[in-house]
Amino acid sequence: MQGLLVIISGPSGSGKGTVVKQLDTAKGYARSISVTTRAPRAGEEDGQDYFFTTPEEFTRMRQENELLEHALFVGHNYGTPRHYVEKQIAEGKVVVLEIEIQGALQVRGKFPDAVLIFLMPPTLHELSNRLVKRATEDAVTIDARLKRALEEVPLINEYDYLIINDEVDCAVAKIDAIVDAERLRPRRCQQQITHFFI
Amino acid sequence: MQGLLVIISGPSGSGKGTVVKQLDTAKGYARSISVTTRAPRAGEEDGQDYFFTTPEEFTRMRQENELLEHALFVGHNYGTPRHYVEKQIAEGKVVVLEIEIQGALQVRGKFPDAVLIFLMPPTLHELSNRLVKRATEDAVTIDARLKRALEEVPLINEYDYLIINDEVDCAVAKIDAIVDAERLRPRRCQQQITHFFI
Repeated sequence: MQGLLVIISGPSGSGKGTVVKQLDTAKGYARSISVTTRAPRAGEEDGQDYFFTTPEEFTRMRQENELLEHALFVGHNYGTPRHYVEKQIAEGKVVVLEIEIQGALQVRGKFPDAVLIFLMPPTLHELSNRLVKRATEDAVTIDARLKRALEEVPLINEYDYLIINDEVDCAVAKIDAIVDAERLRPRRCQQQITHFFI
Repeated sequence: MQGLLVIISGPSGSGKGTVVKQLDTAKGYARSISVTTRAPRAGEEDGQDYFFTTPEEFTRMRQENELLEHALFVGHNYGTPRHYVEKQIAEGKVVVLEIEIQGALQVRGKFPDAVLIFLMPPTLHELSNRLVKRATEDAVTIDARLKRALEEVPLINEYDYLIINDEVDCAVAKIDAIVDAERLRPRRCQQQITHFFI
């Protein structure tokens, strides 16, 4: 079976975390593992949660085009290692990368075969409700998140697919249909085309 | 639900007739109905099997860009009426048009939103077997069909999707996944995006 890189983005409160988890456990998709320069926390395993590395090695990877995207967050570097993604795909796996819009567009630039899916809640009102209900953030942070979600709406058109996430199972089924369909792209079926002549 | 035009092509013996029939009966897809200048045969109904028309009216339709494609076959004109396809799509239906490659590419030129699916048997050997087994044609015709299938292989890359039809149910499920996925294209979801702000 043809492997594939699927990128999932969406505003905080779009439910992408839950959806990605379900793709992982119920559908057997592989999660992309980031490389980072921060120290492992208690219980975190190298090659499982992250690939932990030194700033020097991170710089080398970046310079030698071994990262599909990278970003600095609270003084630490994070990136998506190209080699790991390509290895999973070569094994026929669907690799899922959950990342914000700028990172997603960076990955597409370096890996044009990636499939970009944007997840969003049905309405801004519903998004606001979810964030308030989650109760992990104050009103100012929630307002900032809603403002950012609004600003990001025009960027949805850069994505290949848009899923309105009003129910997790339904969103997961839609992503599965997208993967089934994308595997049927002629450029991904060259082996079957060759087989036709045998 | 968003309507869609799905075009299915494939060599004679690819099983596209059976697949299209099942999409029609089991999945509720609407078949595109051709307009033709030939006389109705016994049992054929206008607006059901074909839209029957005069050569003058056909010429007018062609000149006024009312046909998505047209061809001459054994002295009679055949074409795909744009208005009928657009009406079905506006009603949210999936319209299926079974047509050969040149016609499919003609339609795409006039209707870029069409989704093009190519159906093919697993191997040339299997295609040959199916044609021989069908026993409706002589060896010379079968050879011509196989030769044509081989010539058409490079054109598969013009299609959006390729389905190897080794089992009808499986091919139908794949087309269904393609339709589900294609409905999630951001350009087809502008209504949901607008709804987000409500």
